[in-house]
Amino acid sequence: MFGLFSKKWNPEGKHVYITGGSSGLGLGLAHILAQKGAHISIVARSQSKLDEAIESIEKLRVNPSQIFKAYSHALDSGDAAAKALQLVAEAHGGELPDAIFTCAGSSKPMFFIDTTEQDMVDGMTNAYWLQAWTAWAATKQMVKAGKKGAKIVFVSSLLGYMSFLGYTSYTPGKHALRGLADTLHSELKLYGIDVHIYFPGTMFTPGYEEENKTKPAITQAIEGTDGLTSDQAAQALYKGVVNGNYHISGDLITDLFHASTRGSAPRNNWLLEGLYDLVAYFAVPVWRSGVESQVLAHRDEHQTYLAKKGFFS
Amino acid sequence: MFGLFSKKWNPEGKHVYITGGSSGLGLGLAHILAQKGAHISIVARSQSKLDEAIESIEKLRVNPSQIFKAYSHALDSGDAAAKALQLVAEAHGGELPDAIFTCAGSSKPMFFIDTTEQDMVDGMTNAYWLQAWTAWAATKQMVKAGKKGAKIVFVSSLLGYMSFLGYTSYTPGKHALRGLADTLHSELKLYGIDVHIYFPGTMFTPGYEEENKTKPAITQAIEGTDGLTSDQAAQALYKGVVNGNYHISGDLITDLFHASTRGSAPRNNWLLEGLYDLVAYFAVPVWRSGVESQVLAHRDEHQTYLAKKGFFS
Repeated sequence: MFGLFSKKWNPEGKHVYITGGSSGLGLGLAHILAQKGAHISIVARSQSKLDEAIESIEKLRVNPSQIFKAYSHALDSGDAAAKALQLVAEAHGGELPDAIFTCAGSSKPMFFIDTTEQDMVDGMTNAYWLQAWTAWAATKQMVKAGKKGAKIVFVSSLLGYMSFLGYTSYTPGKHALRGLADTLHSELKLYGIDVHIYFPGTMFTPGYEEENKTKPAITQAIEGTDGLTSDQAAQALYKGVVNGNYHISGDLITDLFHASTRGSAPRNNWLLEGLYDLVAYFAVPVWRSGVESQVLAHRDEHQTYLAKKGFFS
Repeated sequence: MFGLFSKKWNPEGKHVYITGGSSGLGLGLAHILAQKGAHISIVARSQSKLDEAIESIEKLRVNPSQIFKAYSHALDSGDAAAKALQLVAEAHGGELPDAIFTCAGSSKPMFFIDTTEQDMVDGMTNAYWLQAWTAWAATKQMVKAGKKGAKIVFVSSLLGYMSFLGYTSYTPGKHALRGLADTLHSELKLYGIDVHIYFPGTMFTPGYEEENKTKPAITQAIEGTDGLTSDQAAQALYKGVVNGNYHISGDLITDLFHASTRGSAPRNNWLLEGLYDLVAYFAVPVWRSGVESQVLAHRDEHQTYLAKKGFFS
């Protein structure tokens, strides 16, 4: 329970498959794993980004036998995810990866009232299905192949633990991912497959710059400007997996929400999480009431905003 | 905070719209609200069930002016939910409902490995979208109409707080609903719309009988046989909304998971929830390790099950 007796994960010589591995967190993770001697396969959409990514991973090679591969492939259906996984296995004689990190995803924050049906559906795809389908395909293929000791690692978000205005198209998917991981952490024990899930706070990635284009100012104000670089976030994720942590959080704010949103997830550290829970018990309501005041103070400005864009006409 | 100063909600003379109101929890709620003098509109799919439901609601009328209406309508897209809401408003001179309870939904428990792509997609529709679309449509229509003081009440599940094997098609949607509600609880303060969400444990409803048809025996064993009738569950939901509680739980097990899965949700009762959190801090891991033992003990039987159904061939 305190990490004293748990066996550390060593990625050396292991085949690690990273979705969304061409940028941000996924690429940061690929860099770390390359330096640890892992074989790496990345899947994303843009071939030019994949080419650049592979070049940067290649520079960190520590062993001539390491295999680094990149594939441009869709992941937005069970069938697409299954085919991507087969593609990734081919370079390893058909052997499935030893660890899968599902880092693919994106967020498009906006007011609920401004969302179209398509925004909501796309939000669920980008926050949930892109990762869920890979886990779905991997479980079937791994069990069929009798693959033992493999890992599936999801990437949720601080918004998988809590939420506030602006994230109605994203938070549900990140909560859903937590629900899927909590179910699979229990269910995949039937097959000896390990499950982990990471809850990063703000990460200064290309995806973050993209989401800021649609993010309401009030949402930005609530979030503040704290965050991690993608390398820092990748380091926290890597460390959590190595230590065998199930729910992984990499900064104090997320640690606090983690401790106060345990559900049925196994504990990483009883003492520390108990302390965090106690702190969060009093700190979170203070934070929340501050957010509520910000939201209420924004009412008039928001009405003006809606009127200006012709919502009432 | 202790409920001493909060104003109680009184449904008398209010127009309450209940999706999934023809059976189970939704119907139980309609019965309570009819006795409290509310106008009631229910929407579901089966006309015969709607007819029966309206007949039973009619028997509980306390006032000749109460309007009871039933509509057979789809709710599985934003557009469908918007049309259903318009239909419901018509009998009230186009005035939108004062409270919306989204009780529509269903679950189909099964092993993850047995799910088809369609099972996973349908699971999200039935656990999440059926309710999310009504909230989506209602928010737009209410804000446009300048409707104040309305309520949107979601129905999640104990599986919106935690999970275990068998629920990979359902738990993600129920977590997603919690994520949506937590976001909207913050965001809809912009418009003076109240949000509540109910987390019932096992309910002995027609839906429960339906889900037991596909439920793995091990899932059934973990769940045990405790539960509430739909009338008891409806009573807990009603009481929670009347008292102004945001997250509503109606039995001790759910109370414990509620307390240990607070996230950014506002507290109903600081003292009691602190106590529950403390109990859960030690009780949940004991429960979880019992479940893990059950799952591990099921491994061989599960392999035989998969072999028998030809999974490996």
